[in-house]
Amino acid sequence: MSIQTAIKTLIETFEEKVTTNKALLEQHGRNEAYFPVTPPDAVVFPESTADVAAIVKICAEHNCPVIAYGTGTSLEGHQLAIKGGISLDMSKMNKVLAVHDEDMDAVVQPGVTREQLNEDLRATGLFFPVDPGANASLGGMAATRASGTTAVRYGTMRENVMALEVVLADGRIIRTGSRARKSAAGYDLTKLFVGSEGTLGIITELTLRLQGQPEAISAATCAFPDIESAVNTVIATIQMGIPMARIEFVDEMMVRGFNLYQGSQMPEVPHLFVEFHGSPDGVKEQAESFGEIVADMGGTDFKWSEKPEDRNALWKMRHNAYYAHKALQPEKPALSTDICVPISRLAEAVKFARLEGERLNLMVSILGHVGDGNFHCAVSFDPDNAVEHAAVKEFLHNLNQQALELDGTVTGEHGVGVGKMKYMQGEHGEALQVMRDIKKTLDPQNILNPGKILPEE
Amino acid sequence: MSIQTAIKTLIETFEEKVTTNKALLEQHGRNEAYFPVTPPDAVVFPESTADVAAIVKICAEHNCPVIAYGTGTSLEGHQLAIKGGISLDMSKMNKVLAVHDEDMDAVVQPGVTREQLNEDLRATGLFFPVDPGANASLGGMAATRASGTTAVRYGTMRENVMALEVVLADGRIIRTGSRARKSAAGYDLTKLFVGSEGTLGIITELTLRLQGQPEAISAATCAFPDIESAVNTVIATIQMGIPMARIEFVDEMMVRGFNLYQGSQMPEVPHLFVEFHGSPDGVKEQAESFGEIVADMGGTDFKWSEKPEDRNALWKMRHNAYYAHKALQPEKPALSTDICVPISRLAEAVKFARLEGERLNLMVSILGHVGDGNFHCAVSFDPDNAVEHAAVKEFLHNLNQQALELDGTVTGEHGVGVGKMKYMQGEHGEALQVMRDIKKTLDPQNILNPGKILPEE
Repeated sequence: MSIQTAIKTLIETFEEKVTTNKALLEQHGRNEAYFPVTPPDAVVFPESTADVAAIVKICAEHNCPVIAYGTGTSLEGHQLAIKGGISLDMSKMNKVLAVHDEDMDAVVQPGVTREQLNEDLRATGLFFPVDPGANASLGGMAATRASGTTAVRYGTMRENVMALEVVLADGRIIRTGSRARKSAAGYDLTKLFVGSEGTLGIITELTLRLQGQPEAISAATCAFPDIESAVNTVIATIQMGIPMARIEFVDEMMVRGFNLYQGSQMPEVPHLFVEFHGSPDGVKEQAESFGEIVADMGGTDFKWSEKPEDRNALWKMRHNAYYAHKALQPEKPALSTDICVPISRLAEAVKFARLEGERLNLMVSILGHVGDGNFHCAVSFDPDNAVEHAAVKEFLHNLNQQALELDGTVTGEHGVGVGKMKYMQGEHGEALQVMRDIKKTLDPQNILNPGKILPEE
Repeated sequence: MSIQTAIKTLIETFEEKVTTNKALLEQHGRNEAYFPVTPPDAVVFPESTADVAAIVKICAEHNCPVIAYGTGTSLEGHQLAIKGGISLDMSKMNKVLAVHDEDMDAVVQPGVTREQLNEDLRATGLFFPVDPGANASLGGMAATRASGTTAVRYGTMRENVMALEVVLADGRIIRTGSRARKSAAGYDLTKLFVGSEGTLGIITELTLRLQGQPEAISAATCAFPDIESAVNTVIATIQMGIPMARIEFVDEMMVRGFNLYQGSQMPEVPHLFVEFHGSPDGVKEQAESFGEIVADMGGTDFKWSEKPEDRNALWKMRHNAYYAHKALQPEKPALSTDICVPISRLAEAVKFARLEGERLNLMVSILGHVGDGNFHCAVSFDPDNAVEHAAVKEFLHNLNQQALELDGTVTGEHGVGVGKMKYMQGEHGEALQVMRDIKKTLDPQNILNPGKILPEE
């Protein structure tokens, strides 16, 4: 078999950097979604760009699939070896290569995690803002175009990756972009590789845009009688130009989960959690202006604080949303949806999700990065219960279809992987063919993460 | 000839939408740079996406080049018909198709100009921020990845185009992106077409991100003893997180030009022109914080104002920079350079330009979007004077080489066109081959704006 020949050559060439240890194969075939474990035939741990290029060349010679692997925290099965081949574990390429204070950028290897980078940056007064929750690798975050709670202010990986080094499917090494803040010099290859989920090339180095740590931060929470008034508050706040760093919606069921999980006694109605970054006077003014909008929209329980302990408690709670949801039905695993719609359609989309959950008798809680129109439903289900399994599938399908009808997308930030492939035709129409053509041009043998993003024709 | 057959068929099909009037051909072959007039063989005025698709199909059948034409304000000869063919003048596709207030986006045809869009938006409290100076068409701005004075706050066309409708080289129509603020659903085709200068497809519709008109605006000017102190002021202001909407550098020679052109008496030393957008208290605080940094860095003559008339006078002056430069040597035409470097290298790059100008005995004035590290040199020269022509060529070449050495780009916002093609190999290295492969995939006959961006192999 050609995969086995490739692995034999890899072992001869890279010796202890290659493993076929069963436990490690298993670990690299696991996922945080509902897909069966799908291990690779070998795991290879490159230590340099030259290693990656040599590995990919060997795999190309033998038609062996290559799946880049970061921290395995993907939610759509990106790392599954559905066609076999090797998992290219980037965890040993984990150096911060340069931090340019004055330019507010950093050059990192793909295995550096976002928390590791921010730890390294602590003394500089700078930070990297993209925060998907998990302590994911920056290479993986770029590959899936990740974002999270701060995208409303600082953008997603799309806006924060300035330049890349990439190993192509034939082992050639290219550099895209530069450290210049903008450029009009030809096709934007950086943005083409960001979000390509390892299907067009292997990211071996990233230049990332950094931000100054804000002088002051304030956080606020408030309660609403219904989803419309919460969403209208967000719309008015954005239109007023109040620069929120975070604005998160949680529905009544998620609040119940928080209360159960951490013993709090928040009123079980929709809430917004907000954070402002700026000067001390600036964040005070922003919180006050926001409070006025909340009151105008019928919101209550407006509380704001500049104390780090209050703020940390708030975001710790938010980041524990998965466990809070689990507290609602502890015996069942849960998965997450990820649609994103124009904000004017957000209340409609959230209500649809709530009603569909009720209709299908599923435990659903909702939270969202509402400044972007992106929200997640956590859905509990017993995978061994056929009725519930079918209900969840119907729920996911109807939500994704609804997103497309509302001029949105089936994935705001989790990516396509294998989970969202079947919606790509509906979302992109004829443009899907252009994506396929680009894939064939850059990876004619289809060895780079095959079976992801693009459904088979 | 196949081009002539294409035009014959176009005239039969589209009748009065096609012209071969000599004056119109000339007009479409002119440019604002130093290139000879290079007219197309016909000009076609499509009125719909269906028209564009049908025109491109006819041209594809007959191997006839198609050059999309906006307002002709490109500075690098993008619109020149260097291989003949038709100019596709988008000026009749000039409708604002939708404005979504709550979502803060607008859907427009490519012939809409930025001033026309902002006029349309006036009553909504929203505006489109990208401002390249010229009243360019939005299709042309997207195609060249334009930006301008406000990019430091609001980004370039890269950040402000959310979705596109594009006619491909074979006449197929695709849609890229959606009205959702973010998406992780596959390859970012929107960003691939933005900046592709009409070489990968014809943009027939754009969805653009809008901004809320700021409640208050303040503007400030200040003088510096040298370029370093001005640049250090910019770096410190960005690191402090003070959100400038505009920050423009002008050197002593440009100030002399302003004084000559408009009879002002500014001290002939480097200046910064700054604008802040926000709440009334916010812009006051920002201007004051900025003033403190200016003083720390040795700046003087700090003046700030919230009066619209002062602000308008300031930016009118800035936008008259071309004429101000001309006032320095009225008998000669002038052209503009466009490099962009990491901001830590900006003082070095500007000083290099100043010294090169002196060494080559050229009249050079400098102004720049310094928040992005992007600056332009206006250079006067007599095209009929061989010595001066050679000196200008050497000046341009040395500046562009210097940009690459400083980890920058040869074009921050003007694009490649024909003028910057010869630097693409140096800027992109092996990645240029990937651009060529993508071009061949999307336009195998090379009929879309041939001879631009990608130098011949």
